[in-house]
Amino acid sequence: MTWTFKTKPVIIAASSVGGPFEAKGPLASTFDQFFEKLDGGEKSFEKAQRRLMEDASIHALKKAELTNEEVDVFLAGDLINQMTPTNFAARTLSIPFIGLYNACATSMAGFMTGAALIDGGYAKNVLTAAASHNAAVEKQFRYPTEYGGQKPPISQWTATACGAAILSSSGTGPYIHSATPGRVLDYGVTDPFNMGAAMAPAAADTIIRHVKNPEEYDCIITGDLGKTGKQIFVKLLKDSGMNLSQTSMLDCGELLYGSEPQVFSGGSGAGCSAAVTCGYIYEKMITNEWTRVLIAATGALLSPLSVLQKDSIPCIAHAVELRMDEA
Amino acid sequence: MTWTFKTKPVIIAASSVGGPFEAKGPLASTFDQFFEKLDGGEKSFEKAQRRLMEDASIHALKKAELTNEEVDVFLAGDLINQMTPTNFAARTLSIPFIGLYNACATSMAGFMTGAALIDGGYAKNVLTAAASHNAAVEKQFRYPTEYGGQKPPISQWTATACGAAILSSSGTGPYIHSATPGRVLDYGVTDPFNMGAAMAPAAADTIIRHVKNPEEYDCIITGDLGKTGKQIFVKLLKDSGMNLSQTSMLDCGELLYGSEPQVFSGGSGAGCSAAVTCGYIYEKMITNEWTRVLIAATGALLSPLSVLQKDSIPCIAHAVELRMDEA
Repeated sequence: MTWTFKTKPVIIAASSVGGPFEAKGPLASTFDQFFEKLDGGEKSFEKAQRRLMEDASIHALKKAELTNEEVDVFLAGDLINQMTPTNFAARTLSIPFIGLYNACATSMAGFMTGAALIDGGYAKNVLTAAASHNAAVEKQFRYPTEYGGQKPPISQWTATACGAAILSSSGTGPYIHSATPGRVLDYGVTDPFNMGAAMAPAAADTIIRHVKNPEEYDCIITGDLGKTGKQIFVKLLKDSGMNLSQTSMLDCGELLYGSEPQVFSGGSGAGCSAAVTCGYIYEKMITNEWTRVLIAATGALLSPLSVLQKDSIPCIAHAVELRMDEA
Repeated sequence: MTWTFKTKPVIIAASSVGGPFEAKGPLASTFDQFFEKLDGGEKSFEKAQRRLMEDASIHALKKAELTNEEVDVFLAGDLINQMTPTNFAARTLSIPFIGLYNACATSMAGFMTGAALIDGGYAKNVLTAAASHNAAVEKQFRYPTEYGGQKPPISQWTATACGAAILSSSGTGPYIHSATPGRVLDYGVTDPFNMGAAMAPAAADTIIRHVKNPEEYDCIITGDLGKTGKQIFVKLLKDSGMNLSQTSMLDCGELLYGSEPQVFSGGSGAGCSAAVTCGYIYEKMITNEWTRVLIAATGALLSPLSVLQKDSIPCIAHAVELRMDEA
């Protein structure tokens, strides 16, 4: 089912922060802050990821001219075991907290759940955030970066980034028009380096359930399918009979790093779609360059243990439609 | 803030399933099913935990006479890294899925989020579940059970259990009257064996924000503070000026295993408060023995890594008030 929000919950402020590698990317101008060093001056990469979320949240609160006491709920998550960077950020922010985990689809899980809480009258202001840190996440899922493990060209690059947004019952800015929560699909991909291919069917399933006419959108933006996954995704949509000739199809994982060869197929990580949404996409909408976009954040719901136990990779995608009324 | 649900979202069905050790506990008669062996016939303890959630969910769906296609959203979570048992259960159930993570407070995060989605008109039927498996969780957080590591008397016993409930916009049964989302508190406890003490202040904070007059409740039930944490919790409430002389104070961790010495301070795990709520508490309400209870599920938001990094234990508690109208 697709949720349509009657009261138009507004994104009154948004902020993206990133690491030193993201600072060199094509979207750098849409970030509010970058760590000079990967550790952000913290004693561990996990603590650095906590800082990413705290800093993005504080930037968003400042832009919204709100104190944390004025925010009713904090909806956030990340990829680290038991989401400790998010938990410690929630401790710092001291806002009633509901932790969300849908891997890299967590960003839009936060947007749609927050919009539902505002539309239902349970919150006036919601802070939502999702973050990832390249060294913390790579260490946990693959190898410590210092190890220099080789990767295949289909692999992706975990973003060191956080996107945070303030959703509100009143104010100006792009609003959350509707959302379609995703179902977990699994087409049997077992290669943890090939998450784009694994996630493509889930993205297609959610988009097909949400979109009536793709031509009505300035663009349809997937979370982090990367080059490999996006090709499969677009083919699946076309095979379903969807005419995409008039719709620009973008992917946050491609947008964040452009043609940078080091990232192989593109960016990934819970912070990827969050930071691109709260930076680049938010700017395009607030300036009325885009007035209607669909963001389908994609998540690969695996763990290092599930891979060792020879499980395939279940995936999910949540679609959130943002609109901006003509100024 | 406290959420009050105008449309009285009803718990039309609930189910608890457990392991062989829980089958010997005082609440055994309130469970629908037990694994004969700890592995439930699965190839790993994590897969056994997935089965606990699948089985409890299927029991609840049958009792509600609903197919999974008739359920709009699945809200669930667990303690295993990246919540893979829940993710795989969501794949099996094929219901639009939002993963929740608040450690052992996940059960009530699901109840209150589900009630808000129903009350706001975003779902007619919500399936919510939380699970834990003793061997899978102990292996991850402490030592494999086969290792036979010694534990201090303040430690708790991770429940092998899942509680699943169907929340609906219409039907008969106890309803979710209100809920108070918790804030993350941290009083500096660093001993991962002493989670009851760590969680007590978070439970007190949420209860104080929710409860006006404790005498109006048949009982106030904490999630899994255990004997040690419950003593601290009750003292904190009394110190705040709350008169508890007329209110029975219960704890799911105590209820699940009674005076069984093997569990030390009591039960814990995401499945503990979930299974006690969906079994024992649900029975007490459906029979009108209790007509107004407050459940404060408590969660310790640590990870093995955060402990190794010398972090203290941030904690949270979500309070959900259940009421049953006189028959």
